[in-house]
Order: sequence, then structure tokens, then C-alpha cells
Amino acid sequence: MVERLPADSVGLVRTQTVRLFTAEEPLHLELGGTLGPIDVAYETYGSLSPAADNAVFICHALTGDAHAAGFHEGAKRPGWWDNLIGPGKPLDTNRFFVISANLIGGCQGSTGPSSINPATDAAYGLDFPLLMMRDLVAVHRALVKHLGITRLLAALGGSLGGMQVLQWALDHPDEIANALVIAASSRLTAQNIGFSAVARRAIMTDRNFAEGDYAAAGVNPDTGLAIARMMAHITYLSEDALTEKFGRQPHPNRHHPGFGIDFAVESYLDHQGQAFLERFDALSYLYLTRVMDYFDPFADPDALTAVSADPVTWLVLSFATDWRFGTDHSRRIVRKLEQAGQPVTFREIPSTWGHDSFLLPVEPYHATLRAFFDRSLREVRA
Amino acid sequence: MVERLPADSVGLVRTQTVRLFTAEEPLHLELGGTLGPIDVAYETYGSLSPAADNAVFICHALTGDAHAAGFHEGAKRPGWWDNLIGPGKPLDTNRFFVISANLIGGCQGSTGPSSINPATDAAYGLDFPLLMMRDLVAVHRALVKHLGITRLLAALGGSLGGMQVLQWALDHPDEIANALVIAASSRLTAQNIGFSAVARRAIMTDRNFAEGDYAAAGVNPDTGLAIARMMAHITYLSEDALTEKFGRQPHPNRHHPGFGIDFAVESYLDHQGQAFLERFDALSYLYLTRVMDYFDPFADPDALTAVSADPVTWLVLSFATDWRFGTDHSRRIVRKLEQAGQPVTFREIPSTWGHDSFLLPVEPYHATLRAFFDRSLREVRA
Repeated sequence: MVERLPADSVGLVRTQTVRLFTAEEPLHLELGGTLGPIDVAYETYGSLSPAADNAVFICHALTGDAHAAGFHEGAKRPGWWDNLIGPGKPLDTNRFFVISANLIGGCQGSTGPSSINPATDAAYGLDFPLLMMRDLVAVHRALVKHLGITRLLAALGGSLGGMQVLQWALDHPDEIANALVIAASSRLTAQNIGFSAVARRAIMTDRNFAEGDYAAAGVNPDTGLAIARMMAHITYLSEDALTEKFGRQPHPNRHHPGFGIDFAVESYLDHQGQAFLERFDALSYLYLTRVMDYFDPFADPDALTAVSADPVTWLVLSFATDWRFGTDHSRRIVRKLEQAGQPVTFREIPSTWGHDSFLLPVEPYHATLRAFFDRSLREVRA
Repeated sequence: MVERLPADSVGLVRTQTVRLFTAEEPLHLELGGTLGPIDVAYETYGSLSPAADNAVFICHALTGDAHAAGFHEGAKRPGWWDNLIGPGKPLDTNRFFVISANLIGGCQGSTGPSSINPATDAAYGLDFPLLMMRDLVAVHRALVKHLGITRLLAALGGSLGGMQVLQWALDHPDEIANALVIAASSRLTAQNIGFSAVARRAIMTDRNFAEGDYAAAGVNPDTGLAIARMMAHITYLSEDALTEKFGRQPHPNRHHPGFGIDFAVESYLDHQGQAFLERFDALSYLYLTRVMDYFDPFADPDALTAVSADPVTWLVLSFATDWRFGTDHSRRIVRKLEQAGQPVTFREIPSTWGHDSFLLPVEPYHATLRAFFDRSLREVRA
């Protein structure tokens, strides 16, 4: 239990779960077939205004969850985007109603491949259907409807979350007034896909993967999942950030010379890999990375039809040292949106921290978000 | 058997092996202890001049071998640096005597961790001693002496090979007139070390690693070694090169949708990983990557003493799109050498291919090498 919560905290929060689709009324999937039941875990912060005009939806990244802000009972650390969300923060919960939900395909409360398949009473494993970005959007749209909101003031996300925002706003511009697409991509490069392919290989060749039925076998592909995370983590930071944090510092308990943990950066990556095992599921890693690989919304010739008729106000942000989804990715999105006559603000934020910058309280970044949210509320109430 | 060898080929070649240290007269290692016997595999191309003034030593990269040029009997493909070495090529074998040798710690003819330890009649495994760059240099110096050469006209290497050249020329400037340090580094960054740490993790956690005694167990850590290679291979190419080669092309036999090989880049990386298993040893991967991690010659306060008294002529090259050992790494080497009053030519070569450019016949690169070698021979004979 946190003894005294910070004054700018949204306070104690709980994750709620709601069943949005059932076996009888399932979700019809983009690639065919259906999925149901579907539960979704979510949290909310702040209060919905009587006019229901102040709702902001948070879309999380690959390994995120519904717990974006505030403190769970007994927790020492707040949610993953707590630096952004709270009283007086850029996403000011005195004025905005913020919703954060776990993705389907995920593993933190929403239905995913390690959920129990009621048809078999065992975890889905690889019987879980392949998902596309529109499936992720469909489920979160159902949550918004469930909450009694017909139009979001804004949807906001970084990395995979930004990709989800892009798909949602393109397809349903009537439901989103402002779309914030941060450190995201409209189509992964061969390098992006390559890194995810190697991560999936590490997971699927782990001796404990058991063709996806590791839960039934009472094991977990820890080795492969940790390798996947360690590799991915290198790509989330800029080379300069790693140099600044670690350089060539030796680890205090180094195994020098040898093949153990010898440099501080090795200890850091090892810790990242091990900590990840406590909170993430290997099958979710497979399913959600494939959603990203397949994401290519502008390949659809009708991609811009809906939004052309009903423009959304866009904010597209990249970070100067992000080499995962760098400025080229954002510029591509901006070009496409501008071709469709959208009002787009684009900014490349100076930051030394690489892709992970979107999670950090980088000053010009938060200042930009604050100004954008303030304007969006003024405009909707003008 | 190659039916007709190209006119600019050095022709049919064989790898030779020589015992340079014995159990009775072993190599004294940089970190203490000894190693012996030590065999070294090498090839030569062209003829040593009567004055023995035209010898050029090739230092290979992490996964290279002694077979740099020409054709082995029955082989369809030539050695790995055949585009550089041969009659009329930049390293013209009508004029230069070229020596290429496998590193100790390696696995292609020179003594390494999977060689038989005569003391036990079993493979060394992890009982093989940790090596440092100076050990690699010491063994190749012994080979040069064995070949009756007291002073090399030049030593040349890319990546790890360039690092070896740097150490050799710094410590023994009387033995090398010209040193070519290409796409190399004088100290790895945290990111560099991180990628190698994840690769080693994949190898050492493979169920068949058997604490390094996989040969005795009749198995091989194929899964981990392939993952290591796939990941490393991504870092050897620029993002643009991967995009140009593969973009988001589907693989012809794609497993879409699913977690198999679906994009062309996935098939390419899979092939790189599998092909690597046929030619490389997991223990050598551990030992030689650690040599690179530990390499930091300028940390030695006496690093520049010898060369300051007896300057070497240096050519330092980087490639514009190399993000493994990019231009920053080369500039750092150049600054240190210039502080010691060395004649250094530095050039950043425009190339789209990333780190692997040093292996490719990039026109301005080969033109630079040709001019440098021509000048070096003119000067030694002036």
C-alpha cells in the first residue's frame, strides 16, 4: 500500500473487466471466423462530463496493459504512463476522462491466446485465431460504446498503440475527433519484421514452447521469451542512450573474464528479460508482433475514403533518435493524411532516448501533448 | 570442379595447416596461462618477391576463414574476398603476395575451443582459455615469421579483422608498413556488446549446448547458433539495404497468415541462420565475440608509445550506412592515431549496404584500396 499518494496522482485504481462479445454473439474477425467470448480489461481516470465530450482513449504498445496511471492497492510503482495522466499533467484528469484498455491477443486481463477456450476448457494456444489491427479496434470500439460514449475527444497511442489509433481514425472518423499517432508506423520495414521474426523464432524453438500448449504442459518458454525481450529492448533505445546509461562500465559482480554477465549493459538486458517473464505471455508476443507485421492500412485503396469525407485532427510525432519507427515512418503517415486533406500537425521531438521516448516525460513532447489536448477541449466546447 | 576459372582468379587453392606452437613451447596468453599445441590454417596467393617486400596479410572478420580468394577443388564459389584479391584486382596477385589465415579461437582449421585438447583427447569446450586480441596477433605474427617475412608491406582487415590490424600495428609497427583498418572499432559500444550478449545467451541456453561439451554429447546447439546469426545478420545490413532487397515482399511459399515464414526477409534470415550452422562453431562464436567486447587498445596508456617512435602509414575506412561500426568508431581511431603523429588517411565510403559493405565490390572503396596498395609498393621500392 502506498502510504501517501503524490498530489498529481489519479490515486488508487482498479482494473475492471467486461465481457463485450459472447460465444453466441462473437466478434467476426478480419481474416474470417469468429471469436467469443471476449473479455476486456480496462481502467478509467477522471470523470466523464455530462455531455460525454471529454473522453480520451489510450492505446498501449506491444507489451503494455490497461494499468496506465495511478496505483494499484499495495503497489509501489504507478501505471506505465503515469507521467502523462493525472491532475495537472498533460492529460489532466481534472478535465479529461481517460480510458485505457488491454488489447485482445494480450495477456493482462483481455482475452488472448493463453485464455481458456470455453469450448475445450484448456488454453487456446495456437488455436487462437490470427488477429489483424481491425480486430483490435473492433473490441475497443465495443468498450467505448459500452461506456456510453459515441465520440472520443481523442485517441492516443505510441508504437503499436499509434498504429491502432491510425486504423481506428481512418475507418471511423466519426468516432474520434483528434488522433495522436506517436512513434508509430503505417508499414513495418524489412528490418522491423526481421527483428520480430528472430524474436518469434527464439520463442517457438524454446524447448518449453510445446507447440503453444506450454500452459497445459505446466511449463513456460522462459528462455526464448527472455531472449526476444532482450533483443527487442536494444532496439527500443538509441545507441547514444545505451552509451550514456552504460557505456563500457563493468558490472559490479562481473564474471570477468568469461561468458557471464561482465558489462553493466549485459546485466541490464538480463534484468529486462527476466522481469518481462513475470508480466508477459509468449503467445501474446507472437500474435501481437504479427499484427504489427501485417499492418499496412494504406495498401487498402479505400483507406482514406471515410476520413476524406469526415476529417479528423491529427497529431503525428516522432523522436529524433528512434531507429525502430523513426521519423521516416511518421513522415510517410503524414504524407498520406495530407493527400486526403486532413489537418495534420507533425513534429519530430528532440530526444536522446530512442523509441522508448514516447513513454518518458521528455519536456518538448509533453508540452506538445498538453497544448494539443487543451486546444482539443476548447474546440469541442467552442 | 570449376570447369573454367575466371581470368582474374588466383585459380585453384588449398588451405594449408602449420603447427606454430607446441605443448612444450606453448603460446603465453595475455590473460595468463598457456596454449599449445596451436595449429594455424592459411592460404597464400601470388608470389613472395625475392626481397620479401610485397607481403600483404588478410585479417578476417568474426565468422571468416583462411579461404579468402580462388577456388577450392570442386567448389562452385570462390573465397570470401575474391572480389578484392586476384590478377588485376585491387590486391593484384601479379604483384602482391597475399596471406590469409584463420584465427585461433576459430573453427576452420586453426586451433579453437572445439579442437581436441591433447591432454584429455576430447574437445576443449569451455576449458579453452579466454583469448584477447594480442593472442590472435601473436599467432599470426608467428605465421608471418614462419613464412620468412620480417616486415609486411600491409595488413588489412574489416570489422574484427580491422581491430586485429589495429592491435598488431600499434604493438609492432616495425613489422607492418601500412595498416588498413576498415569498418572497425577501437572499443565497442553498449549496443554492440548488447547484441553479442543476446547472441551468446541464445547459444548458451540452447538445450544442446551441454555446458560447451556438445561435441562429446554428439549434439550441436543449432537452434541458438542460428538465432545468434539471424540477429547479427540484421545488424550487418543497413535498414535501406534490407528494404531494397526485400521490402515487404511475401515469400513465394508463404505460410500466410501465421507464424512461419511469410515475408521474404524471414526466409532470407532463416537461410542465413541455417547456412551458418554448416560452417561455424558455437564455441568459436562465444570466444571471438568476447575478444571484440574486451578490445580497448587505447585504454592502455602505452598504446601509442611504439608507433609514435616508428610510424605506420594508416588507411582508416568507414561506410556511410554502417550502423554496427559506423563512422564514429573510425573517427575515434583516427583521432587517437593523429594524436600520436601518425600519417592517417581517413575516408567515409558512400555505400547503401551497411556494415557488410567491406566485403562487397563497392566502386569508390575498391578504387581507394587499389590506389593505397599501388602507392605502398611504389614507396617500399623507391
